[in-house]
Amino acid sequence: MFSEREMVASLVSRFPSYIGDDAALLTGADSLSWVITKDLLAEGVHFRTRYFSPKDLAHKALQVNLSDIAAMGGQARFILCGVSIPAGLEEYGRHFLESLAQQCRTQGIALVGGDMTRSCQDFFISVTALGVVLADQGKKRSTAEKGDFVCVAGKIGDAFLGLCALEGEIEGLCSFKDHFLKPWAHLAQGRWLAQYPGVTSMMDLSDGLWVDLDKLGQASQLGSCLNLDDIEYRDDFLEACQRLSIDPLEAFLTGGEDYSLLFTVKPEAWDDLQAGFLRNFALPLRRVGQMVPDLGVDFSGKRSPEVYKFKPFSHFGEGR
Amino acid sequence: MFSEREMVASLVSRFPSYIGDDAALLTGADSLSWVITKDLLAEGVHFRTRYFSPKDLAHKALQVNLSDIAAMGGQARFILCGVSIPAGLEEYGRHFLESLAQQCRTQGIALVGGDMTRSCQDFFISVTALGVVLADQGKKRSTAEKGDFVCVAGKIGDAFLGLCALEGEIEGLCSFKDHFLKPWAHLAQGRWLAQYPGVTSMMDLSDGLWVDLDKLGQASQLGSCLNLDDIEYRDDFLEACQRLSIDPLEAFLTGGEDYSLLFTVKPEAWDDLQAGFLRNFALPLRRVGQMVPDLGVDFSGKRSPEVYKFKPFSHFGEGR
Repeated sequence: MFSEREMVASLVSRFPSYIGDDAALLTGADSLSWVITKDLLAEGVHFRTRYFSPKDLAHKALQVNLSDIAAMGGQARFILCGVSIPAGLEEYGRHFLESLAQQCRTQGIALVGGDMTRSCQDFFISVTALGVVLADQGKKRSTAEKGDFVCVAGKIGDAFLGLCALEGEIEGLCSFKDHFLKPWAHLAQGRWLAQYPGVTSMMDLSDGLWVDLDKLGQASQLGSCLNLDDIEYRDDFLEACQRLSIDPLEAFLTGGEDYSLLFTVKPEAWDDLQAGFLRNFALPLRRVGQMVPDLGVDFSGKRSPEVYKFKPFSHFGEGR
Repeated sequence: MFSEREMVASLVSRFPSYIGDDAALLTGADSLSWVITKDLLAEGVHFRTRYFSPKDLAHKALQVNLSDIAAMGGQARFILCGVSIPAGLEEYGRHFLESLAQQCRTQGIALVGGDMTRSCQDFFISVTALGVVLADQGKKRSTAEKGDFVCVAGKIGDAFLGLCALEGEIEGLCSFKDHFLKPWAHLAQGRWLAQYPGVTSMMDLSDGLWVDLDKLGQASQLGSCLNLDDIEYRDDFLEACQRLSIDPLEAFLTGGEDYSLLFTVKPEAWDDLQAGFLRNFALPLRRVGQMVPDLGVDFSGKRSPEVYKFKPFSHFGEGR
């Protein structure tokens, strides 16, 4: 199958000013810009009804879109939702939509439209989210600079462990399963980071650190280097990896669906940024590497040669 | 299956200011409002790859969304497109996307984002379109008034005959097939009608005259009456009905997918409007009925009792 990357590259060449970030930035006449994004969730590819309750699926469909708004530094305002429902999943579909509407209300987001149709086989969800951002604060992927630190706000690899636990029907590991089933968009953190002067670029972590960092580098026409010896794992992360027979480094580099924020920052701003973030959100930031001149993601440290056997993240088995 | 109408009603009760029209109207601080809409096309429900070329499918996916913008009196600006592609349809999917991008460029619309994923079984398309409209000219369904004439700009029933010819693999009838495969949004006509002072409400004709007029009436808390003796059919329409063994009245009342404009107008403005429209677009308008106080669609004329055996439009056989 031709890749999303190929297709995106082909579209970018036609509409260079919009495509290539988590969300499109539509600058208006006034000081506010719109950010708009669309994500698809296909049954059997992105979710299974076996372990996604309609409520959790509504949560995830909403949050993965809001995460794109967060990655641009935006404030979420509106969503539209389309669903195609196969025979037998009518009640599931109804609960999904009602739950989505309820969650939008709770979070001050207006559900302003959509579409509902039958489908032949697969349950299908398409959400479009719109947000606003101050025109000079919309963050892009293409603006990282050489020497910038590469940093992450939020978890790395946890959602992948949760997915493996769900797929393997492993008991326990609930916090990992929850992180896969019910990720939260880092909206407040995204706005805070976007307003911070030293932050040079941002995107969300959806396809795994390696793949996403490569995308950020490509957009900025730079590369990056990760020192693998610097990685510190939590104890529960290591225990989960052991139970699931997964290499922690593989989960860290290739696990997708965390919806954390990946960003770059000027080295001289790092100490202050880190302290300010901890003060505001009671969460530590993580520094994972540095932007370098040559394209691609490079690794240093003891395990660097062996990482090239790892395959990129896919939801269900493809390529694993 | 629970109906789209039930679900829309449930959502309208939660977000009353947005849902219920062809597109949501997002009023901003300045004199321009945004109109935003989303349509889904599911393989086997809305299209078959057997007779839709990728190019025609791209045309239709774009135009059915633009038709919602047209129905609000808006000017189309941006679209986002998501596709989920099953194994075996990769090349078809690639041609679809390239063709869509090409058509957007030709029509001055920016393709600003989207998503591309695998799917297990069905080819699936989700398009979101954004347009702008002067804040005081966005047309809604809910503003028809008692005594207004019910009028249509564009064809009625032709797309349904085209669908039947395609499904039955009937030779010829090309103009009808083309109207189903490649409908055109009435954007210029929609803007012209929206600016016309006597036009009170508008929507597009996608589910058939009967169903759509009922929706317009419900939104305006009115009913409508159609005199069936006044309907005039073109000769080629009657011939197509005969070849396809379809009652012309059934095609006229229940045939969907025409993407014509259904609107209401003050009786005193009708003559002038009709003449102006003909002068501008070289197309006649059609007056089909009148808004009345009681909810529902009522019929007068010789054939009025028998129409209640007709079933609403569905794409492929459902209910027929």
